[in-house]
Amino acid sequence: MERTLVKDLKESSGKEVTLQGRVQNVRALGNVTFIVLQDYSGTIQCVFEKDPGAKTGDAVEVEGLVKEEKRAKGGFEIQGKSLKVVSANLEDLPFDIANPQLKLQLATLLDLRTISLRHSKVQAIFKLYDILLESYETVMRDEGFTEIKTPKILEAASEGGANFFKIDYFEKEAFLAQSPQFYKQIMVGVFERVFEIGPVFRAEPHFTTRHVNEYISLDAEMGFIEDYRSVTAMLNKVLVKVFKMIGEKGKPYLEMWEAKVPEVPAEIPHVKLADAKKIIKEKYGYEVPAGTDIDPEGERLICRYAKEEFGSDFIFTTHYPWKERPFYTMPDPDDADATYGFDLLFRGVELVTGSQRIHDYKKLLENMKKKGVKPEGMEFYLDVFKYAMPPHGGWAIGSERLIQHLLNLDSVKEAVLFPRDVKRLRP
Amino acid sequence: MERTLVKDLKESSGKEVTLQGRVQNVRALGNVTFIVLQDYSGTIQCVFEKDPGAKTGDAVEVEGLVKEEKRAKGGFEIQGKSLKVVSANLEDLPFDIANPQLKLQLATLLDLRTISLRHSKVQAIFKLYDILLESYETVMRDEGFTEIKTPKILEAASEGGANFFKIDYFEKEAFLAQSPQFYKQIMVGVFERVFEIGPVFRAEPHFTTRHVNEYISLDAEMGFIEDYRSVTAMLNKVLVKVFKMIGEKGKPYLEMWEAKVPEVPAEIPHVKLADAKKIIKEKYGYEVPAGTDIDPEGERLICRYAKEEFGSDFIFTTHYPWKERPFYTMPDPDDADATYGFDLLFRGVELVTGSQRIHDYKKLLENMKKKGVKPEGMEFYLDVFKYAMPPHGGWAIGSERLIQHLLNLDSVKEAVLFPRDVKRLRP
Repeated sequence: MERTLVKDLKESSGKEVTLQGRVQNVRALGNVTFIVLQDYSGTIQCVFEKDPGAKTGDAVEVEGLVKEEKRAKGGFEIQGKSLKVVSANLEDLPFDIANPQLKLQLATLLDLRTISLRHSKVQAIFKLYDILLESYETVMRDEGFTEIKTPKILEAASEGGANFFKIDYFEKEAFLAQSPQFYKQIMVGVFERVFEIGPVFRAEPHFTTRHVNEYISLDAEMGFIEDYRSVTAMLNKVLVKVFKMIGEKGKPYLEMWEAKVPEVPAEIPHVKLADAKKIIKEKYGYEVPAGTDIDPEGERLICRYAKEEFGSDFIFTTHYPWKERPFYTMPDPDDADATYGFDLLFRGVELVTGSQRIHDYKKLLENMKKKGVKPEGMEFYLDVFKYAMPPHGGWAIGSERLIQHLLNLDSVKEAVLFPRDVKRLRP
Repeated sequence: MERTLVKDLKESSGKEVTLQGRVQNVRALGNVTFIVLQDYSGTIQCVFEKDPGAKTGDAVEVEGLVKEEKRAKGGFEIQGKSLKVVSANLEDLPFDIANPQLKLQLATLLDLRTISLRHSKVQAIFKLYDILLESYETVMRDEGFTEIKTPKILEAASEGGANFFKIDYFEKEAFLAQSPQFYKQIMVGVFERVFEIGPVFRAEPHFTTRHVNEYISLDAEMGFIEDYRSVTAMLNKVLVKVFKMIGEKGKPYLEMWEAKVPEVPAEIPHVKLADAKKIIKEKYGYEVPAGTDIDPEGERLICRYAKEEFGSDFIFTTHYPWKERPFYTMPDPDDADATYGFDLLFRGVELVTGSQRIHDYKKLLENMKKKGVKPEGMEFYLDVFKYAMPPHGGWAIGSERLIQHLLNLDSVKEAVLFPRDVKRLRP
């Protein structure tokens, strides 16, 4: 008999069906055995009069009758007739996957990743991740952005050269891209509005809950802007739509984590970084250490301010110091120490980095010189600015960090399928 | 005045508007100057009574009156009032970008890539590429597949170890992923149906028109299959929808290349590779050289056969030799020398590789042993098969190759924004 999907069961009410999927849970109550079956479209309870002999985790095929059952999730259950184990566990699962709560230490969770991903709460994280990707793809296209794919293997370690992974490339040296920065800017000259979803690689020896060495960046770049405010306005618009879609499509997954999508204000508040530091000091008595743009505690406090003052889970901190931002960042015309660079903070952490870029060739070379950045290896990028680049800017969203803070996960690694850090290259 | 997009001009008929974009072409006829302006939404002709002083390639802002004009593309033109050069070319463009035909050698086209991408015929390639991505994202979700992102940095060079790029990873050795193979199979255990769009890296020292060293693979993997025919059936279904969407949304771009989307038959013909070789020999007198599964000339001829016999631009060649396919490929139960591995050929070349995989742990170890593949570094993958993997299979589509053969481009490199080959790491 042809396979029926869980999501289509209502169309087969009163009929016999064949289901295929994984046994999420087995419970015996007297003579009756309850089996929760999961396929790629949903989960359903199957009730057997005698134990059909399946264990949690097995891949099975169930034949049974679709019965309306008001108390059941979705309004139906299966009166099981027969069960065939398609593929059985050869060993006991390394932890109780049927327990609705997952009680594993992070290291264990990740060591057992290939199996812990099957836990329904972990699945929920990556269902939400899928919805995030879908919403970004959809919303960016709606706004006229063209999806691009740019190379991850680079000839030169650009932007200063720190924290690049080196590759053996046919007896030459090459590097893994830290960001699609140069390429997305070049593509503004081609399509004006572009976006990319792709891996970036950072050879940073960090041991924190907010860093991984390989992650997926949601990039965008747009031309014919007024100034950086055109960029923050577009990003604002995109996030309103993205979180709306996550809230709608991701409802059951958010509920499992008792998480709520943030209200994204129609106008996310903006504060200059220098003012943010003053506010933090005046309101919360905390002084951001000298020599950093802003530290994690400062980020947390300015987010607290955004929440208390504007009821917003988001705040733009703008006008980052010239010293701290890369050479392509547009300097603030009114303040030589500042730039049109910004961050977007979300629930206490930096979620997005962006800026207006310099589009004038001479100004770009000048700024590089001032910063002591050598043009070697970047000529292909710099030369584009001889050819009428419009004013432009863009952003990079850390996709896993977004999911981390949406669900309030302890570590960003929980939001990466197979995370990479200094010590972890496996699974 | 606020910016109006070219695509919205019909709503401003008879009104004054401000347009922003790039000058694609300047023509003077007597006192009248015709300027073709391109923004991210389309192109429009602007007519000026006197030369407004813009050159091809400049980024400009135009103010003018929207006039109905039957002879014009889209039914409108702009009666130009004023033109401001927002950003000018500092040097002459390195080739005539206004010429509708692009007459550059491949090497020059790629050396000048950052600018040659602005040519409208080249833009068309990557607009179609964008539509390909969109259609794959959409269609795969419609079929119940979850989008995943898996790591590109690997601890071990798996699958034999040849042709991997090596990375310096914090004083250890690591490798760039040649495919998401192991991870997508692991994810079948989690979501049953998954897809990934991501870069893959092949350290193959090829100098051909059909290879690059970094490309974007459109991967998929699905569980609870009957056998490899469930996989080819799904792929068939996906391609029908993908090419339909490309045909509809990509019409203007296809026309620029005088290209037609292929008719994808509801049932793409299948032929066993061994039979394909016989057919090629009998019908076309060509003998595929011994020691290869099939060579490029063989691929060309079996595609000719598919076209002549079935009117199809596609043909599945199945049952690839056990010797030639990786250890995870399901052996043919009826023929120890063959497998349930297949290719999909499109207009003369391999476009997709796929197979049913082995899902039984013991059978997998046995097959590895027979092939002499060592389990070291693959334990995280192999161990998953202890935990009830359902029968499954999948495919990998070369996205750039699809576009190459859709448009009949001489080289696959024309379908990569910034291609990487043995000698080319720049731009």
